[in-house]
Amino acid sequence: LAAARDGDKAALGRLLSLVERGGEQAKAVGRLTIGPSAAVDQVIGLTGAPGTGKSTLTDRLIGLARQQGTVGVLAVDPSSPLSGGAILGDRVRMPGHALDDGVFIRSMATRGHHGGLALAAAGAIRLLAAAGRAVVLVETVGVGQVEVEIAGAADTTVVVVNPGWGDAVQASKAGLLEVADVFVVNKADRHGADQARQDLDRVLDLGVGSSGWRPPVLMAVASTGRGVEDVWAAIRGHRDQLEATGQLTARRNQQLVDETGRLLVRLVEQDVRALDGGRRWQQITEAVAARRLDPHEAAAELLELAGQ
Amino acid sequence: LAAARDGDKAALGRLLSLVERGGEQAKAVGRLTIGPSAAVDQVIGLTGAPGTGKSTLTDRLIGLARQQGTVGVLAVDPSSPLSGGAILGDRVRMPGHALDDGVFIRSMATRGHHGGLALAAAGAIRLLAAAGRAVVLVETVGVGQVEVEIAGAADTTVVVVNPGWGDAVQASKAGLLEVADVFVVNKADRHGADQARQDLDRVLDLGVGSSGWRPPVLMAVASTGRGVEDVWAAIRGHRDQLEATGQLTARRNQQLVDETGRLLVRLVEQDVRALDGGRRWQQITEAVAARRLDPHEAAAELLELAGQ
Repeated sequence: LAAARDGDKAALGRLLSLVERGGEQAKAVGRLTIGPSAAVDQVIGLTGAPGTGKSTLTDRLIGLARQQGTVGVLAVDPSSPLSGGAILGDRVRMPGHALDDGVFIRSMATRGHHGGLALAAAGAIRLLAAAGRAVVLVETVGVGQVEVEIAGAADTTVVVVNPGWGDAVQASKAGLLEVADVFVVNKADRHGADQARQDLDRVLDLGVGSSGWRPPVLMAVASTGRGVEDVWAAIRGHRDQLEATGQLTARRNQQLVDETGRLLVRLVEQDVRALDGGRRWQQITEAVAARRLDPHEAAAELLELAGQ
Repeated sequence: LAAARDGDKAALGRLLSLVERGGEQAKAVGRLTIGPSAAVDQVIGLTGAPGTGKSTLTDRLIGLARQQGTVGVLAVDPSSPLSGGAILGDRVRMPGHALDDGVFIRSMATRGHHGGLALAAAGAIRLLAAAGRAVVLVETVGVGQVEVEIAGAADTTVVVVNPGWGDAVQASKAGLLEVADVFVVNKADRHGADQARQDLDRVLDLGVGSSGWRPPVLMAVASTGRGVEDVWAAIRGHRDQLEATGQLTARRNQQLVDETGRLLVRLVEQDVRALDGGRRWQQITEAVAARRLDPHEAAAELLELAGQ
């Protein structure tokens, strides 16, 4: 971790791999990351449907985030060009950042976490923070509960939409309005951008969104950079508001406590699965779903098995 | 339970008290309720800000729900006239139902569950189902995470709003759009009802809401009964769609598995608190929030303590 803090990207990469692997190894890394992670200036989640230009916007925001210090980027999006360890892709798309020692970009596989992607992402965010990154950017494709959960691990969540968004969202069963702190209508040079903005403003005037904060709606063309500075200003504005109202600390603390509860369930699951290769675990969960076993009894039984 | 199934309301009331008490007693009742609860025809959640007329609407819907068989009503709303064990209130407001043996109405205290209100409500819903109630209506005041969680335990969630809703919702930081399967603009004889409906339709056209189901927006005046039959038809329509797409069973099964996970965390909390009156529990959760302890370590420590 000391090496990672000094800017050794390979060391940071190895630690992240341990976090992704979960279990004892993630725990050992977690032990290193207590304390300093509170020092991170801002954790920013970027989410939206595939093809909305999240990655291009992330790319632009990295440059602006560098004003705060070093930057860590986590791409939890199988469709992201930042993702899949595409080193060539990074170089082509981000010539400025590939040579910048202050920017660390890492993709996170969306599979192989045994359902624990959100936990792995939370651990990875904490590691990047502990490694001294001032700003952590997390890109997720905004569909499904896990992605919303990951967005919940950020201080500020940016939801990226496009003109004509209605169709895209309807298709993707989004839960995006709930988690958005900042809206960006990207590709705003296209037809229907003003309509998309008006629609969003109308929705937001109805009161959906985080408490005490009316999410602003920004227009941007990430591919040319138009409007991106305003997006950054809005992201920073949200951080200022969180800090001024004491919500920054409260949010982060609650996230940690919630994570502990989720880890507890996962530990029990691991213990019980380890007993007999998962047979007993499957029997119990199936019995609950089939209403042959009450959740109270199932929980007690699982806890007892975990203690063996 | 056999007595409760035969229509003995006092027996059903005693069982509900045990569920509310939690712990071993709730577990014992839970053991009785496995299996038959799958037979419930529809669990309907009604939620909305205080003063929107949820209780009056619930009252009207009880009569229509009686077409399906017996009805159980759970009022988890401190401001509800159905709530607080207000027998006189019930008689005054529901002259038809007070004398109807097929209708069982129970209020649930919102305090004293040690943060486990959602779990208590889930257990109560399952008990009413196991006691043979064909339809279970759950009324909650739609503010806060717990209320949204309870709404999530229903097959169909009805969100009640009023003309001029924008202000009310903005004030109450609602998370209601996400959970709504059916919207009702109640008090629709007031000024601004059409506007409220148009606003909602516009929001819903943006794609917010459950997958594959565009929540309809109904106009009603619950106090006179106007539009209530259409509301009931929409509620039943949602049930038909859930069944046709296989989501009814899938939703219910997932709810049970999720509940098992939450109960597991609660059992561990109870065990650890019991060790020393809660000191160790407080130390650990505070250490996590203060970042002196990693969530992985905290979870492992709690699990070990619970096994003692």
